[in-house]
Amino acid sequence: MDSGAGSIRRRGLMLVLSSPSGAGKTSISRALLERNKNLSLSISITTRAKRPGETSGDDYIFVTPTDFNLMVNRRELLEHAKVFGHYYGTPEKAVIDCLNEGQDVLFDIDWQGTQQIADKVGDDLVSVFILPPSTGELEDRLRRRAQDKADVIAERMAKAADEMTHWDAYQYVVVNEDFETSVARVEAILVAERLKRTRQSGLVDFVTRLRQGY
Amino acid sequence: MDSGAGSIRRRGLMLVLSSPSGAGKTSISRALLERNKNLSLSISITTRAKRPGETSGDDYIFVTPTDFNLMVNRRELLEHAKVFGHYYGTPEKAVIDCLNEGQDVLFDIDWQGTQQIADKVGDDLVSVFILPPSTGELEDRLRRRAQDKADVIAERMAKAADEMTHWDAYQYVVVNEDFETSVARVEAILVAERLKRTRQSGLVDFVTRLRQGY
Repeated sequence: MDSGAGSIRRRGLMLVLSSPSGAGKTSISRALLERNKNLSLSISITTRAKRPGETSGDDYIFVTPTDFNLMVNRRELLEHAKVFGHYYGTPEKAVIDCLNEGQDVLFDIDWQGTQQIADKVGDDLVSVFILPPSTGELEDRLRRRAQDKADVIAERMAKAADEMTHWDAYQYVVVNEDFETSVARVEAILVAERLKRTRQSGLVDFVTRLRQGY
Repeated sequence: MDSGAGSIRRRGLMLVLSSPSGAGKTSISRALLERNKNLSLSISITTRAKRPGETSGDDYIFVTPTDFNLMVNRRELLEHAKVFGHYYGTPEKAVIDCLNEGQDVLFDIDWQGTQQIADKVGDDLVSVFILPPSTGELEDRLRRRAQDKADVIAERMAKAADEMTHWDAYQYVVVNEDFETSVARVEAILVAERLKRTRQSGLVDFVTRLRQGY
């Protein structure tokens, strides 16, 4: 995909995608990462157990509750939260290094994490909330996740209804009616945000040279 | 192109494109209008003489200085300015009607007009500044306009150097190195801005219905 800002030096951005469980956020994230070389996923740390097929460092970095607390106390996390009885957090240093190198970072986190990040990073944040097209569609998607039992689905539907109330704290809202359209829309947001004047830190020099006749 | 916001009711936006003469703004505007059914051009009024091939109401609405002053005094113009000794202005009513109907309006105006519009309309405005990739490229493009004489070209180059200084008042900046890439970038800005939460006035109702189980 178009990197969005030509050869002008720019600061990376933090693209936060949030949604109720089952709205399609994870599939959209995967497609974005596959199609955008300049976008990398912020790997969260978590205290929850590894699920079948998951690899540490790929999906999450799996840590003990003791190690998690140590990172919280050392203020090494951009955000952290407790979800379904387990702790999740985002190590800060790797993210800041990416932004300074003009690399964009994708965050697949919930509204609690987004609030904490928004409070810390200001203009680097680009926040997108994904909504399902209907409640029926959301329930179907949750049911299709074979590893979840009936009571887990009921709990997630209740949580989804609660999570949905946070759409109004996000900069952009995408209703995920069609997967490819939704991916294209989030990509458009990414291209546009890269073109924001305030992110293109090389423009002052570029225009100075233009006006000198280069 | 993707209309950007599915079936959710939304308010239209005002897409302002500005650039120094010869940076490619007019060609980009034409391509955007051809490819986007939901985008229409705001037709300016002007007191300058019609050029060969121009039609009143298509390129500009050509008016007398007396009529122009009458519209200024009646406060019927969103912005107006004097450029190369002639007056140009944007009638307000047609624009406001479009926005209320969810129709986007494109403005091909200079930094003076953009300042006046920004002062009046607030969040409806999406402003994009187009820069040439180099001064040489800019001069080539101005020379290719056969109807302009040498002194007119010199005057325009001087004016372009001045106009360029206003890039830092715009929300987005696109360096026009390649025509198709630049059109795609402005289209991405358009798609993204349509997805801004604050423009999607139908979202409150949509999420309320979702949470009620629709």
